[in-house]
Amino acid sequence: MGSVPHLSKGLDDVSIGESRISWVGGETGDLVYRGFDIRTLVPGVPYESVAHLLLFGDPPDRDPSPEVVAGLHDARTVPPGIERVVDALPPTLPPLEALRTILSALGDGSFGYPPTLEEGYRLIARTPVLLARYVRRASGRAPVAADPTLGHAANYLWMLTGARPGLRPIAALEGYLDLLADHGMNASTFALRVAISTQSDLISAATAALGTLKGPIHGGAPSRVSAMLDEIGTPERAAGWIADRLARREVLYGFGHRVYKAEDPRGLLLHEIAKGIADPRRLELAEVVERVALEALRAAKPNARLYTNVEYYSAVVLEAIGLPPALFTPTFAVARTVGWTAHAIEQATDNRLLRPDLTYIGPPKGRVWPRPRPSSVPA
Amino acid sequence: MGSVPHLSKGLDDVSIGESRISWVGGETGDLVYRGFDIRTLVPGVPYESVAHLLLFGDPPDRDPSPEVVAGLHDARTVPPGIERVVDALPPTLPPLEALRTILSALGDGSFGYPPTLEEGYRLIARTPVLLARYVRRASGRAPVAADPTLGHAANYLWMLTGARPGLRPIAALEGYLDLLADHGMNASTFALRVAISTQSDLISAATAALGTLKGPIHGGAPSRVSAMLDEIGTPERAAGWIADRLARREVLYGFGHRVYKAEDPRGLLLHEIAKGIADPRRLELAEVVERVALEALRAAKPNARLYTNVEYYSAVVLEAIGLPPALFTPTFAVARTVGWTAHAIEQATDNRLLRPDLTYIGPPKGRVWPRPRPSSVPA
Repeated sequence: MGSVPHLSKGLDDVSIGESRISWVGGETGDLVYRGFDIRTLVPGVPYESVAHLLLFGDPPDRDPSPEVVAGLHDARTVPPGIERVVDALPPTLPPLEALRTILSALGDGSFGYPPTLEEGYRLIARTPVLLARYVRRASGRAPVAADPTLGHAANYLWMLTGARPGLRPIAALEGYLDLLADHGMNASTFALRVAISTQSDLISAATAALGTLKGPIHGGAPSRVSAMLDEIGTPERAAGWIADRLARREVLYGFGHRVYKAEDPRGLLLHEIAKGIADPRRLELAEVVERVALEALRAAKPNARLYTNVEYYSAVVLEAIGLPPALFTPTFAVARTVGWTAHAIEQATDNRLLRPDLTYIGPPKGRVWPRPRPSSVPA
Repeated sequence: MGSVPHLSKGLDDVSIGESRISWVGGETGDLVYRGFDIRTLVPGVPYESVAHLLLFGDPPDRDPSPEVVAGLHDARTVPPGIERVVDALPPTLPPLEALRTILSALGDGSFGYPPTLEEGYRLIARTPVLLARYVRRASGRAPVAADPTLGHAANYLWMLTGARPGLRPIAALEGYLDLLADHGMNASTFALRVAISTQSDLISAATAALGTLKGPIHGGAPSRVSAMLDEIGTPERAAGWIADRLARREVLYGFGHRVYKAEDPRGLLLHEIAKGIADPRRLELAEVVERVALEALRAAKPNARLYTNVEYYSAVVLEAIGLPPALFTPTFAVARTVGWTAHAIEQATDNRLLRPDLTYIGPPKGRVWPRPRPSSVPA
């Protein structure tokens, strides 16, 4: 560090390298997976095929990807010791924290460095399976065994509810999972790449990602959107509620994004999905709140280029599928395990320790302890 | 992102901001905590007082810091639900992964944003307590209750072994903990700051840090140093073993560091501590291997400015204290929880989402899925 480092508090203007996985066009409102505009994939392409695209770089020969279907199927079976850990967790643990704890417990030495595709299948397959088991246990219900005839999205709903999911919820969840499967260098994927950069393993890195995803300015916002809609209650109350909130300088969740200075394409597609599945009154409420909030936010900051972000209609879609708000961020993680796997493998192919500097401005070297060095041994 | 970002693959030349906690002088071989040269603190200043210095910015009025002693004492008691999680973990889980899992399970909503000192006390106090409980359970031994009359270092040894630790092991461990308590912007602390930057909580961020610490080019190397010394066996075998290893282009653990282009002051101090506690034959072996390895590495890369790093004599000290290699990295974590707490609190005081860019070089937007969008609903 002989020279003065480049100062970048949020790393906004720094690129940590090259990637072939996804492109986030913040100025144009684009999200591209390996050359495919997300709008050409959703709705309709099964999650297993999107996973195939992100993991291998090209579409599969058939839909849903036979390789990914087989890989996930083989990886779904969980060691019995892990099921005992799931069943021992305090039922008061929020599902996201429970999921992080359970995934961490999978790190028994069977995940190594460099990360492999087979390890990725285990991460992707087991995330919804173990999450569903925990959710049922925590509410006193017996676990539901995986159904090998169901795809990834449908099986998640099946294992959560114990009921055969309808076609519309499955399709809506599949669209959601497709849209959230990857998103360039977001904060959780960045934390995962930092972990992999020390030659740590995929499960360690996924726990780092989950710890990061939780934050409300990353993946932790959708449940707050639902809470906001609940609190507003009816469209007529939107304007007053929002004005009050902004007057108190409090955050409105679901608006604004670090990178997008245009419509987030995922938000637009989730809005379309919501139209097909949400209760019409809830959808109307969400649309009115969105319009009023954007008007108010833009009036307050005319130059900010503020748009609805992905969290907003994520909340509307996930609640319409029947998921409780506590499962919104964990379900984001279910989707993102594919992107995490792709990024972990890519990071390891040309790895370098990610370790920035932090400029020390504390007291200069030379302070003296006020007493003789005491014995370090307690009496 | 209208302009071209600054490209920095390892973030070597990027500073993410200002810090008042510690200064790593890579060119001069310095480590300074809040203005105190580490050489003026170790050996002798109790870990609780070093924690006080790092957390509050100034030395305590007395040693060991009454505030930190009280804070850690109050925080040691663990909810019974967590003890059940510890006891349910598969005994095959390595201690570092077990610790990560257990800490993750602590994240029950009682850790919020911004992180607080009281939360830090819980993280710092419970890390050795829960780790010791797991280690004993995994080997079929009953847990040992904390002893409120013992300091942090001594209580850790007591809870691990169930025997009153001797004065020399306590002093050696205390020196080790002091030296490893913080180290500027290392990779695990960086992962923690990335997590906090999303407004996630201290326990979430600590699990991110632990997932990152595991990597052998960060905190995962010391056990490999012990394994290397075991394999070499006697000083006479050092030259041949190292030449073989380098001929196969394999890594020698314990040498080289991203930042230090001089002697790592922690390594020098740990070497001194080792002289006071290690078996003389083991110490001689370590010293011979160090000398031969440095000669060989410097001959291979004359311009590299390669030195012994902190991992090397960490291994010698920790094994002399009686810890098994599987506990070396977890014990690193025991020490670093203080630095993690200080950095989490500092990050939150002037927070900005840490989210770099990654330059997309994959196929351009415009690829077309080879088939009509299939039904997303399985038959």
